[in-house]
Amino acid sequence: PTKSVAVLPGDGIGPEVVSAALDTVEKLGLPLDFRLGDIGWDCWRQEGDPVPQRTWKLLEETDTCLLGAITSKPLRETEAELDPSLRGTGLTYVSPVLQLRQRLGLYANIRPVTDLDQGRFDFTVIRENTEGLYAGIDVHGLDEPLWNAVRHHPNAAASGPEDTSLTLRLQTRHGIDRLLRFGFAHAEAHGKRLLTVVDKPMVLRNSGNLLRERLELIARDHPDIETEILNVDAVALWMVRRPERFGVLVAENMFGDILSDLGAGVMGGLGLAPSGNIGDHGSYFEPVHGSAPGMVGQDKANPMAMLLTVAQMLDHLGFDVPGEELRDAVRTVARARTTVTYDLGGTAGTREVARAVADRLGRK
Amino acid sequence: PTKSVAVLPGDGIGPEVVSAALDTVEKLGLPLDFRLGDIGWDCWRQEGDPVPQRTWKLLEETDTCLLGAITSKPLRETEAELDPSLRGTGLTYVSPVLQLRQRLGLYANIRPVTDLDQGRFDFTVIRENTEGLYAGIDVHGLDEPLWNAVRHHPNAAASGPEDTSLTLRLQTRHGIDRLLRFGFAHAEAHGKRLLTVVDKPMVLRNSGNLLRERLELIARDHPDIETEILNVDAVALWMVRRPERFGVLVAENMFGDILSDLGAGVMGGLGLAPSGNIGDHGSYFEPVHGSAPGMVGQDKANPMAMLLTVAQMLDHLGFDVPGEELRDAVRTVARARTTVTYDLGGTAGTREVARAVADRLGRK
Ligand SMILES: CC(C)[C@H](C(=O)O)[C@@H](O)C(=O)O
Ligand SMILES: CC(C)[C@H](C(=O)O)[C@@H](O)C(=O)O
Repeated sequence: PTKSVAVLPGDGIGPEVVSAALDTVEKLGLPLDFRLGDIGWDCWRQEGDPVPQRTWKLLEETDTCLLGAITSKPLRETEAELDPSLRGTGLTYVSPVLQLRQRLGLYANIRPVTDLDQGRFDFTVIRENTEGLYAGIDVHGLDEPLWNAVRHHPNAAASGPEDTSLTLRLQTRHGIDRLLRFGFAHAEAHGKRLLTVVDKPMVLRNSGNLLRERLELIARDHPDIETEILNVDAVALWMVRRPERFGVLVAENMFGDILSDLGAGVMGGLGLAPSGNIGDHGSYFEPVHGSAPGMVGQDKANPMAMLLTVAQMLDHLGFDVPGEELRDAVRTVARARTTVTYDLGGTAGTREVARAVADRLGRK
Repeated sequence: PTKSVAVLPGDGIGPEVVSAALDTVEKLGLPLDFRLGDIGWDCWRQEGDPVPQRTWKLLEETDTCLLGAITSKPLRETEAELDPSLRGTGLTYVSPVLQLRQRLGLYANIRPVTDLDQGRFDFTVIRENTEGLYAGIDVHGLDEPLWNAVRHHPNAAASGPEDTSLTLRLQTRHGIDRLLRFGFAHAEAHGKRLLTVVDKPMVLRNSGNLLRERLELIARDHPDIETEILNVDAVALWMVRRPERFGVLVAENMFGDILSDLGAGVMGGLGLAPSGNIGDHGSYFEPVHGSAPGMVGQDKANPMAMLLTVAQMLDHLGFDVPGEELRDAVRTVARARTTVTYDLGGTAGTREVARAVADRLGRK
């Protein structure tokens, strides 16, 4: 049955890599209905929201979503770029990716970290996407109840409530359970035997206990998967030194944010890093890279991250065989090194790389 | 004038690397008075506190402190190891390093990241040591005021106050200002032109504003140092891909914890990573590595991290010339690769490496 995909090219190099990737995917001849929509900086400037109503509607009508890239500017520059008629109306720019994750309840952010070239490591960071330090409670200047919670701390006492800021790291049974279940299922589906839970239990003890309790409980349903709780700092070190030791990692939102970018670094850069954001009733897929404004219109961006993102989306839609075929083709081209972009040491352009991948799709 | 140093070898390989390093340092013939003290796991087991009173007294009487290594065990194993007469008295193990940092007000944790071997990069992570997620407010099961702050979040609502945990990330003008001033001074003293402030301002906006305001204010006193605020995830990626771009990084406690271990990974492992914890009225120095229980008594541990830690301590005590001499000697031995431990691809033992470094100290 035909699957529909909302395609949101977004900003900067987004449109270039999306269009190159979709041309490549056409070769697979899959029953996919791509429906183009708007997101990003222009929507913000002209309409006061980077995710307009019509885009939410499109997301409701489609099976999943492919996102290109999103501009990110310092917050204080955002209002100045708004259409004059909208300025001063109290609108604030909220990152479209955070909007999608929160509003669609996409609690699992899946970022595979694979050594395409050498096959030395192959693990996945599954990042919690809805709570942790991203829960949205971040204040500068404290009211009475929050001030009471910290006033005994010498730094707070020396600063006063006005000059103190607090961010709440929220963790809940609901959030932890669904993340862990997702992690175990992912490990099982991908033949991984080790689930590493990233935390800092010696320091964040009480929240660490909640996580440990839930892990011990849920692990009983998955006797074939070994589990461990590791300190986030140790994980960062080992990702660099011994990436081959990992299978599936699950991490709180901010730890996962850091570790998945680090994963891109370990892989050799953002040019190869795909991701998927998945919930019980929706999903969207995006390369980890940003909109790279300095590179726009030059046919320079590496389309491989987007191609691997499409492959991840195909898996999710149930087209696992073509998904794997696409990944194989990308791997082959990356390994050959003859047709790769600057970031992988080559001189090829975006379209040229995408075509080289498409060529591989033809011959088996 | 003679400087006194509290030497706390601690657990595991701590005593081995401390003793090897001190033998080496003797060659420098400096007016140092080393005074041995107790810290760590045995103190916990026998006395119920890993930092006994007599050690606090020693710290008061000395100019600085050299720490070896500290055992770290999952919290729930700690009470079981207490002396039977102390069990059930409500004692909890609190990491000695956190005790030292908090009680002595050692707000700046300085972790140099240097490519000893190739000289390709040389930057310093300065981690805030007293606030952030380490402020000590971490609860599982929320009382009324804290529950009110999060009850509107869908995950909290779905879990209830009992099954929700919160950790407070505290940032204060007091904490930020002294850290930034320390960072600028460090950059100036070490000829660095770029101060990178690590944050996540697009997501943690209000706390990000406090940090930005203070940075802008304090930066005026240091017109020769360029500043930037970068996202923590981007910093993790760039540390791996382009470590040479960094000069001095200042980071909130948890971000700094992660990034400095990552720095050790980028350097080639914990065998080369020194650190110093500094406040306005005290300091202690320790290698970043742990107690490595599996390696004890085998003369296998790399003493270079400890030797570099001693060098950092010598700088701090005002012996910068011998400090640099010691660092040079370590670099020379590391580069030669003939007398290095297993982690650097060699077969030499702890004492042998320390002696090789001592030999270099003789000849200029
Ligand atoms: C743009 C930003 C809000 C986002 C995040 O922090 O999640 C990005 O870094 C990511 O990892 O997708
Ligand atoms: C042992 C632990 C409490 C400590 C920390 O988190 O600060 C360690 O990881 C470090 O970096 O010194």
